[in-house]
Amino acid sequence: MIIEDRTRSAEEAGPADSPVPVEAVRAFIADALAACGLPPADAAVVAQRMIDADLAGIDTHGIARLPQYVPWLRRGTINPRPTIRIAERGPATAVVDGDNGMGHLVMTLAAETAIALAREAGVGWVGARRSNHAGAGGVYAALALEHGMIGIYGAASSANHMAVSGGAEPMLGTNPIAVAIPAGEEPPVVLDIATSVSSFGAIRKHMLEGRPIPEGWVIDRTEGKPITDPERAAEGTLLPIGGYKGSGLALVIGLLAGPLNRAAFGRDVQDFGGDRDRETNTGQFVIALDVARFLPLPVFKAEIDRHIRDLRNSQRLPGVERIRVPGGERSRRMRERLRDGVPLTAALLRQLDDVAAQLGIAPLRAR
Amino acid sequence: MIIEDRTRSAEEAGPADSPVPVEAVRAFIADALAACGLPPADAAVVAQRMIDADLAGIDTHGIARLPQYVPWLRRGTINPRPTIRIAERGPATAVVDGDNGMGHLVMTLAAETAIALAREAGVGWVGARRSNHAGAGGVYAALALEHGMIGIYGAASSANHMAVSGGAEPMLGTNPIAVAIPAGEEPPVVLDIATSVSSFGAIRKHMLEGRPIPEGWVIDRTEGKPITDPERAAEGTLLPIGGYKGSGLALVIGLLAGPLNRAAFGRDVQDFGGDRDRETNTGQFVIALDVARFLPLPVFKAEIDRHIRDLRNSQRLPGVERIRVPGGERSRRMRERLRDGVPLTAALLRQLDDVAAQLGIAPLRAR
Repeated sequence: MIIEDRTRSAEEAGPADSPVPVEAVRAFIADALAACGLPPADAAVVAQRMIDADLAGIDTHGIARLPQYVPWLRRGTINPRPTIRIAERGPATAVVDGDNGMGHLVMTLAAETAIALAREAGVGWVGARRSNHAGAGGVYAALALEHGMIGIYGAASSANHMAVSGGAEPMLGTNPIAVAIPAGEEPPVVLDIATSVSSFGAIRKHMLEGRPIPEGWVIDRTEGKPITDPERAAEGTLLPIGGYKGSGLALVIGLLAGPLNRAAFGRDVQDFGGDRDRETNTGQFVIALDVARFLPLPVFKAEIDRHIRDLRNSQRLPGVERIRVPGGERSRRMRERLRDGVPLTAALLRQLDDVAAQLGIAPLRAR
Repeated sequence: MIIEDRTRSAEEAGPADSPVPVEAVRAFIADALAACGLPPADAAVVAQRMIDADLAGIDTHGIARLPQYVPWLRRGTINPRPTIRIAERGPATAVVDGDNGMGHLVMTLAAETAIALAREAGVGWVGARRSNHAGAGGVYAALALEHGMIGIYGAASSANHMAVSGGAEPMLGTNPIAVAIPAGEEPPVVLDIATSVSSFGAIRKHMLEGRPIPEGWVIDRTEGKPITDPERAAEGTLLPIGGYKGSGLALVIGLLAGPLNRAAFGRDVQDFGGDRDRETNTGQFVIALDVARFLPLPVFKAEIDRHIRDLRNSQRLPGVERIRVPGGERSRRMRERLRDGVPLTAALLRQLDDVAAQLGIAPLRAR
């Protein structure tokens, strides 16, 4: 049986080094982005969204991505000074054209627009095109929480690592979906998952540790046989959760995030990896739903609390210490990291030193 | 590796008997429901929704459910003459109070309301409470298609068969999600999945055939060990797709369909099976999204066609005859069954004879 209720960081994070204070991380990211040409206000927004991911414990989608973003920004593969605009607008819908800017900026505007639309109409659905990697989807879904709203996020990944069910070619991204639901005294429910069984982060961790990956994660492209050697994972395709079901979910999330916003999907998606030299036209969407249009917010929050407690206190399987409701670990980590700082691996700290040297800014360790 | 791109009927349907013309099925269902006290107009709507499921090939969710509905209606467990009303309404949201009527009626009104709201606002999100089993979710998502809209459906099942990840108690339904996306010349994309790996229908089929069920479908409630004897499946809990991921999906779909609409979830849900003697307070939701608010519908349809063809023509794994995009089989079956009739098993036909005798209506085989 499978017990794997944990956030991605638990499986993907390398060994933690001494934690770095949040303000130092924030200032370092903002300085680095400003040195890449972002206006200071934009750099601050992106830094906040990256820190939101680190605070939530999604270590693979926060500051760890900075060394990847910097060369793209310097090369102009991502536009450091975009004119992000609302290209289409209805009473409860909008499409944001990101002008190939940082996905964090584009999706922050998209989420804020969805929240404003939901305030007026009860629900707001905002798509984005010409966006880029925005870090952790749960961060944007969670922006709705403080407004007493439910947030939903979906994306068409800017790289294809999964095949459609029965297929041998990577035609689909591991298209993620995130849902955030406000609670009262309990932590909000925040689910943030890719539609693949495993992530490349988890595979990398097995590689570093010299352990084989389990069957059911990756299959090769010619025979469909399991690949268990993590070094060979890139030769295969990642398997979706639940076979044709996860493949179908990746497909519909991708169509809603991609073609509906005139963004890339399927054959349009080309993985340039580190050498990416052209716009990805990444598509995402975010939905905000105003709870008060359904029932009074305090009543809803009390009901969510009750259900969270019922689930957490329900009978456990032997060997299971506690039942984790999605979002519980996130809240615990946020408290810890706001207090103690963000744990960064030695390997990441070295990469960030290189970034600092390249950009001529003060290294993180010196802050 | 897993190749299971097929609709539920393919695994769940028993051996097919001679097909019955669609008009005979429709008249039989409508007569049976009218004999249970439904007004003729309501009986016609429910009959159409049940036939929609049978036409789509979801044999477990169409006329096959009639023998279950009839005693509930006669006993008043489901209200045959409900006053279904819109209890809350915003510019783009609504909540339907189903007055414990047939779920098919409630969700038809919910879908129509969502479509009307989306016509005005771009998106419409309509929840339902005091509803009941509505058959196949894909049917309600697909109602949006002819309006040039995308449809999404979710439900908090009226019985709990899954545990939360790590849990031993069935606290969650196999809460389904369905998404329908219009295409041009290609069949629309229609995904309709439960969040469990298998369904009770599939387990029943293994039971009838005397075959063990695969590991990974059901675990027992004390040790968490696989149950492979289909006769013992009811002692266990169904496993979600992708472990904690599917458990999380079932949770958030359930919260959006249940508590947000003041409908049942978690401990509120009690499975009375055939002896059900009180209202289920089933909750569902349906979303309609007007494509034209994002881009011109013909442009979107052409893009969806292109992507469907790219996927279908992508490289296949050995042994895979063709790649199936969700919705393709549905369209093929609809054409076939509209022409040839609906194949019904001998066992179901016998059950329907009993229904006819009980209600004093002409049996299906005599029509």
